[in-house]
Amino acid sequence: MPYTEDPRDLAGCDAAVIGAPMDELASDRPGTRMGPRAIRTESTDTGGHLEAGVDWNADLTVVDYGDAAVVPADPAASHRGIESIVSEVRRSGTIPLILGGDHSITEPCVRGCASEGPLGLIHFDAHTDTASELWGVEVSHGTPMRRLVEQGHVDARRYAQIGLRGYWPGEPEFAWQESVGITSFFMHDVRDLGIAAVVERTTEIVGDGPVYLTVDIDSLDPGFAPGTGTPEPGGMNVHELLSACRRVADAVELVGADVVEVLPARTGPVDVTALMAGRIVSEILTGLALRVRRRSAGG
Amino acid sequence: MPYTEDPRDLAGCDAAVIGAPMDELASDRPGTRMGPRAIRTESTDTGGHLEAGVDWNADLTVVDYGDAAVVPADPAASHRGIESIVSEVRRSGTIPLILGGDHSITEPCVRGCASEGPLGLIHFDAHTDTASELWGVEVSHGTPMRRLVEQGHVDARRYAQIGLRGYWPGEPEFAWQESVGITSFFMHDVRDLGIAAVVERTTEIVGDGPVYLTVDIDSLDPGFAPGTGTPEPGGMNVHELLSACRRVADAVELVGADVVEVLPARTGPVDVTALMAGRIVSEILTGLALRVRRRSAGG
Amino acid sequence: MPYTEDPRDLAGCDAAVIGAPMDELASDRPGTRMGPRAIRTESTDTGGHLEAGVDWNADLTVVDYGDAAVVPADPAASHRGIESIVSEVRRSGTIPLILGGDHSITEPCVRGCASEGPLGLIHFDAHTDTASELWGVEVSHGTPMRRLVEQGHVDARRYAQIGLRGYWPGEPEFAWQESVGITSFFMHDVRDLGIAAVVERTTEIVGDGPVYLTVDIDSLDPGFAPGTGTPEPGGMNVHELLSACRRVADAVELVGADVVEVLPARTGPVDVTALMAGRIVSEILTGLALRVRRRSAGG
Amino acid sequence: MPYTEDPRDLAGCDAAVIGAPMDELASDRPGTRMGPRAIRTESTDTGGHLEAGVDWNADLTVVDYGDAAVVPADPAASHRGIESIVSEVRRSGTIPLILGGDHSITEPCVRGCASEGPLGLIHFDAHTDTASELWGVEVSHGTPMRRLVEQGHVDARRYAQIGLRGYWPGEPEFAWQESVGITSFFMHDVRDLGIAAVVERTTEIVGDGPVYLTVDIDSLDPGFAPGTGTPEPGGMNVHELLSACRRVADAVELVGADVVEVLPARTGPVDVTALMAGRIVSEILTGLALRVRRRSAGG
Amino acid sequence: MPYTEDPRDLAGCDAAVIGAPMDELASDRPGTRMGPRAIRTESTDTGGHLEAGVDWNADLTVVDYGDAAVVPADPAASHRGIESIVSEVRRSGTIPLILGGDHSITEPCVRGCASEGPLGLIHFDAHTDTASELWGVEVSHGTPMRRLVEQGHVDARRYAQIGLRGYWPGEPEFAWQESVGITSFFMHDVRDLGIAAVVERTTEIVGDGPVYLTVDIDSLDPGFAPGTGTPEPGGMNVHELLSACRRVADAVELVGADVVEVLPARTGPVDVTALMAGRIVSEILTGLALRVRRRSAGG
Amino acid sequence: MPYTEDPRDLAGCDAAVIGAPMDELASDRPGTRMGPRAIRTESTDTGGHLEAGVDWNADLTVVDYGDAAVVPADPAASHRGIESIVSEVRRSGTIPLILGGDHSITEPCVRGCASEGPLGLIHFDAHTDTASELWGVEVSHGTPMRRLVEQGHVDARRYAQIGLRGYWPGEPEFAWQESVGITSFFMHDVRDLGIAAVVERTTEIVGDGPVYLTVDIDSLDPGFAPGTGTPEPGGMNVHELLSACRRVADAVELVGADVVEVLPARTGPVDVTALMAGRIVSEILTGLALRVRRRSAGG
Repeated sequence: MPYTEDPRDLAGCDAAVIGAPMDELASDRPGTRMGPRAIRTESTDTGGHLEAGVDWNADLTVVDYGDAAVVPADPAASHRGIESIVSEVRRSGTIPLILGGDHSITEPCVRGCASEGPLGLIHFDAHTDTASELWGVEVSHGTPMRRLVEQGHVDARRYAQIGLRGYWPGEPEFAWQESVGITSFFMHDVRDLGIAAVVERTTEIVGDGPVYLTVDIDSLDPGFAPGTGTPEPGGMNVHELLSACRRVADAVELVGADVVEVLPARTGPVDVTALMAGRIVSEILTGLALRVRRRSAGG
Repeated sequence: MPYTEDPRDLAGCDAAVIGAPMDELASDRPGTRMGPRAIRTESTDTGGHLEAGVDWNADLTVVDYGDAAVVPADPAASHRGIESIVSEVRRSGTIPLILGGDHSITEPCVRGCASEGPLGLIHFDAHTDTASELWGVEVSHGTPMRRLVEQGHVDARRYAQIGLRGYWPGEPEFAWQESVGITSFFMHDVRDLGIAAVVERTTEIVGDGPVYLTVDIDSLDPGFAPGTGTPEPGGMNVHELLSACRRVADAVELVGADVVEVLPARTGPVDVTALMAGRIVSEILTGLALRVRRRSAGG
Repeated sequence: MPYTEDPRDLAGCDAAVIGAPMDELASDRPGTRMGPRAIRTESTDTGGHLEAGVDWNADLTVVDYGDAAVVPADPAASHRGIESIVSEVRRSGTIPLILGGDHSITEPCVRGCASEGPLGLIHFDAHTDTASELWGVEVSHGTPMRRLVEQGHVDARRYAQIGLRGYWPGEPEFAWQESVGITSFFMHDVRDLGIAAVVERTTEIVGDGPVYLTVDIDSLDPGFAPGTGTPEPGGMNVHELLSACRRVADAVELVGADVVEVLPARTGPVDVTALMAGRIVSEILTGLALRVRRRSAGG
Repeated sequence: MPYTEDPRDLAGCDAAVIGAPMDELASDRPGTRMGPRAIRTESTDTGGHLEAGVDWNADLTVVDYGDAAVVPADPAASHRGIESIVSEVRRSGTIPLILGGDHSITEPCVRGCASEGPLGLIHFDAHTDTASELWGVEVSHGTPMRRLVEQGHVDARRYAQIGLRGYWPGEPEFAWQESVGITSFFMHDVRDLGIAAVVERTTEIVGDGPVYLTVDIDSLDPGFAPGTGTPEPGGMNVHELLSACRRVADAVELVGADVVEVLPARTGPVDVTALMAGRIVSEILTGLALRVRRRSAGG
Repeated sequence: MPYTEDPRDLAGCDAAVIGAPMDELASDRPGTRMGPRAIRTESTDTGGHLEAGVDWNADLTVVDYGDAAVVPADPAASHRGIESIVSEVRRSGTIPLILGGDHSITEPCVRGCASEGPLGLIHFDAHTDTASELWGVEVSHGTPMRRLVEQGHVDARRYAQIGLRGYWPGEPEFAWQESVGITSFFMHDVRDLGIAAVVERTTEIVGDGPVYLTVDIDSLDPGFAPGTGTPEPGGMNVHELLSACRRVADAVELVGADVVEVLPARTGPVDVTALMAGRIVSEILTGLALRVRRRSAGG
Repeated sequence: MPYTEDPRDLAGCDAAVIGAPMDELASDRPGTRMGPRAIRTESTDTGGHLEAGVDWNADLTVVDYGDAAVVPADPAASHRGIESIVSEVRRSGTIPLILGGDHSITEPCVRGCASEGPLGLIHFDAHTDTASELWGVEVSHGTPMRRLVEQGHVDARRYAQIGLRGYWPGEPEFAWQESVGITSFFMHDVRDLGIAAVVERTTEIVGDGPVYLTVDIDSLDPGFAPGTGTPEPGGMNVHELLSACRRVADAVELVGADVVEVLPARTGPVDVTALMAGRIVSEILTGLALRVRRRSAGG
């Protein structure tokens, strides 16, 4: 993937990968600032997708646009830097694919993509991240979706959560979610309905307008992705998440996406969590390539 | 979870967590003496169970009652210490939830719960742990269930094993099991019947009397719980074990439970095996909370 | 398992385990030369297979025949050493079970088993390993199956691949595969048809003649076997691969087998990848024991 | 060590250990928020110091006073919480021993000890931590000593740095240091003069008034303490640092001390960095016990 | 090194390596039962000692005599098995070199070597291991030297300890040591006198009779050997311990030796602690070869 | 450090860093192909050298010239690619600083620097790497210095080895070394004479002509640099090696240098071995800056 920091290279690009290496707003284990480097390290050159039958390297123009201008120990400045680079990419007509970083980055990322109006949101996660505040902090990795709905950047009726489980948040958050019209798919929904059906219902919920996709790596079971700060047993398996990301990118009008909460693990000869995050990016790009090809074929 | 070493604090408690940090009776890799500390470290404060719809923190009174008085290098003394603290808790009407330690601890734990007569036993494990002896040793982590049936503390006809697979033990042990009436569910039973059906048949087998639940973490596949001394590929996935523990605690008259053979792994930013063990404890407590609520409603 | 380096001890043996500790032909992460040692370390003494109901230790005669005469930094000499020891074992009527090592070893292993004519091939892998060359190298871990078909040692119409996924190789390789008649089962086939059906169709494809089985550990999902050089998310789960290996060894006329690409991981108290590879060997031996028993019973 | 959160228990205490688990102000690898827990885990019960001939457990009254009220993702609030608990301990006449956390905590810790006037400062570190700002951030782990001198809480002429090496900071910081009268001992001074002579000169520099001691674990060579965020090869060996800490605590009027930048390493069966940090605390306490005994004898 | 389990192969041997894989008597972290395997794995074929100028492989006859008949979970039986194999080797005139295992094994090892009367003892360790009991246990890894002196197998006046430091044991043990005439060199003695002088005084203390050498790997600083159960910062560096072992084996009449408390560390591509233990064995053998050569030369 | 692949950017450069990521010629643990990436990852931006008083970033022009054109599984082609890029850099008047890779790369690296005649060689290593062949292989990581002397690219009388210890090679190699006039400093020389004296004698031996410097990371003790394939206890400490590299680069006419055998260790939050290798590069550059400044002042 060619590397560039020159905005002129965005012309004609389908997508641009951006790193957002910050973790000052995590409420638990930090270290996701190392995520973008680890994901890039584990993402080696690839060819076509054997099972999807397209090759995004060939069908799309994608660049690595470097890292956002984050400032260690100054998360507000980092958020400004992230929003700035994302909106720059978005304005050029290119889809930004942001590598986190803690989940707080979704707030500036979506803002950077929503200049023309509220977006639909597809959100894979164990947690809803819709807290009003976390230990008094209103901009943290547990609050971005609340802020985005409140600020009008996300249309709650076009917002679906997939993979919820575990012990957080509590009733006040779910009550608020219901009041604004957010749709939640719990893990028992994924098991009972099947991931394909959940994704199809999700695409109906977000409908035809522009959509942002955010993937918290903890939507996967910790057995498959141990390197994250708030692992929650009982999550999706690899096929479920990878196929869902590909299908979403193929089916909806994606204007931006992120993969967050990757905390590099260094547990052996390969960092499986970062590898998984890299494959999620590839699935999204594969889905985009399918969409491009389908549209070309369909006229 | 409040910590206490004062027996008076047990009054009115629904459950008490107890550590049993010993591993001198393991026949293979030692280190499970570090299990209780690791499980407590990975078990952070939680709220309600998103999918079960109850919050054991709110609905139950649970304390951490510290560790049993184990003596390094003197397993007989350790067993006495474990039986003593468990029976003290049991006598107060509180359900002891013991964190192992090697599986030998189930012998003193069940004895400490069975003062009023034999118990039913639900046993998740890759192995039966019903050997007559292991290299000549009659009290080891491979023999507790044999001893408990022989001593009359477990009623073999009310005893079900779930998750058996691999290469141990052999025909003599299975012949003995059959002769006394123990029921075994192998992993192919879990796959063919589904975990829900296996659990329902198990609850029928143990019936209405008091029941002890013992969970060897190696019932999970090593992909999900690598930190254990005798890992056996091909085990349960996370959803199967967690949902089964919750259902058991909800459906039967539980008088005690343990989670054993957790050997802390330290493989990355999070110890997934200890995390899993902590979630098993939470599922048991969630099941108890469901049972309490159901009874309140029904009663 | 008794250890011997004396060819006379092969007389009457059903199978002989051989190490092939070389990795100079890997194109990515090296280290599989440590694989045979790690697999042997994790393969402790076992008894009968609980679910299959046979005990290969009792029903078969199996020896550990040591390592092939590999030469560090001289892969051509290593291949000669591997072919030599494999054909020596094969000539004695014993089935060689080779522990890799990188996948290039399958080329000399199959040659060492194919002195009487081309073999059928059952190949579990994420990748086809049928490249014409890799960065100009014609004998690498990405080319053995191409070479073996070209050399006439494998009958392409009796060759089935199971578990393909990911992003390698590309269209030229698949076009060649189709032109010679190789059958490919992708991961979506495993999910859609079920592993049992895939294996049954595979046994029909290889039919009645002699068959070689090669198992790349990366056919498993990295969550279950992270210790390998080219992990690819979305692979088989443990039950699928283990049951398939057992069924194959039971159903076809196996003349040799290998387990390759195990890169020891040292991620905690147990190396799950090497453990898995050891269990694959045990499943193959269990399948052979079933076949022997079935044939004895059937007359 | 007895644990208490009750201020009344401070009466008559010689020292109180306090955790300061925050790392939001680190400019590089985060994770020192896990430091206090790791240090406590590795600090097991001990008896007398074999070589010093005193037993701080017997000669001093020391409590574990819990953690400061830190707020994840809100470092300003965390600093307030740290200053508050430290000054509370200090006011009771007890010496606070704070476990970091990133080095930014030294700023509130010294403020909490300096209510009666500026302190002398003994500072073991590879870096001076006297930057005016770091990427625009004025309160970070690279700036505390600058702030403390500027605020008048540290008397620069009674401030000595020991162990400096590597590539940071630059000439402006050293020019400022010289202008205010700070004394620096580089690693070549430690090697050329010997640690004993460096410590003696240091005690002369700080003289008779109250002194604060801050120990950055990266003053040790990374071979002995790899678990830290900014390791710098070529540091002190274990004997040098441990003996220096003991001697300082014996020779000067210590009013507070911290051990910072411990980033738990998870490198094997024991976390040597956290162990080292725990031993530093023990050496400080041993030095205090020596001082008490010496004064008792002399007085 | 040739492997044998046949006592006839001991004839004419200078030394025999024996594994003692037990750890049930450790009072802290277990896992040294994996020590012998790890040490053997890290001890690859070697040639002559570059600096000593002899090649023990050429000058001595050494065999690997396998492992003692230890019984998991039955340490008394394990001790009997260890004493039995050691005395068998000793009776044949061969020097046993035992790989532990926890330090309790020194008790049966010395007994197995002392059939003809009490031995001198050279003991490298951070701790004295002369407790009367540990938590009530009289045969543990903290008591062997006490038992051996009490039983008359070690002559206390010919017993020297080297490397003591840290916080255990206490005054009662040192009072007893003084009463029976044991000599102790603390770490400050090693630093102040130099290791060469300490070793020379030690050889004078043990004098001319038969001597046993026991090396606890925790005599090294944890920076060089982190994989042990009771690491104590401030220990010997590698050169000090290796040169001391070689000099001792050269200078005294060695009748047996052990290296204990190696807890395999899994810290990366090489287990430095096990490597170090293997090199200690090589240094002892190199010292023996020097002694043989010197005696041959001297007549 | 600016990155370029354009030869025109070499004009006016003082030094260029080049990666040589190959390890196919290692005779033991592979994985040093990951070395260059790891060293670059651990080498963050730095300022002036605190103790040397110069800042190579300011005083020298240095670029990162990317990786040599290595071919996985084809070491002969890799050596051609390495020699080609090194000689290209050398021809431009720039000093190449090569990051290995196994030690075999020194053969093409020196050839690439020696077009105008034989070079002096300063060689830090535990081993001499002057074998005639290793298991029959004449171009391996154990033979480069033999080949370079035989080929006339290194002048044996201007060749010094520093840090030798352990058990390899044997008498034939040392006899050959003596016959051609190579000077060897063993570890006891470093301890007895001091590193400064050894370096001064080394600079006298290589004299005034062009010199190549090769640093095998295993010259350090494994306690400081565990991540290497053939670790040998008893090596140099960090100060000894770092100061020696700086002094060499300052004192002789350096025409090229390499740092080899770094095998990334993944041991915790920081890879100390790669960090150390990065600091060696910085010390060499610092020495060059000192030389430049001295010449400017003196000239």
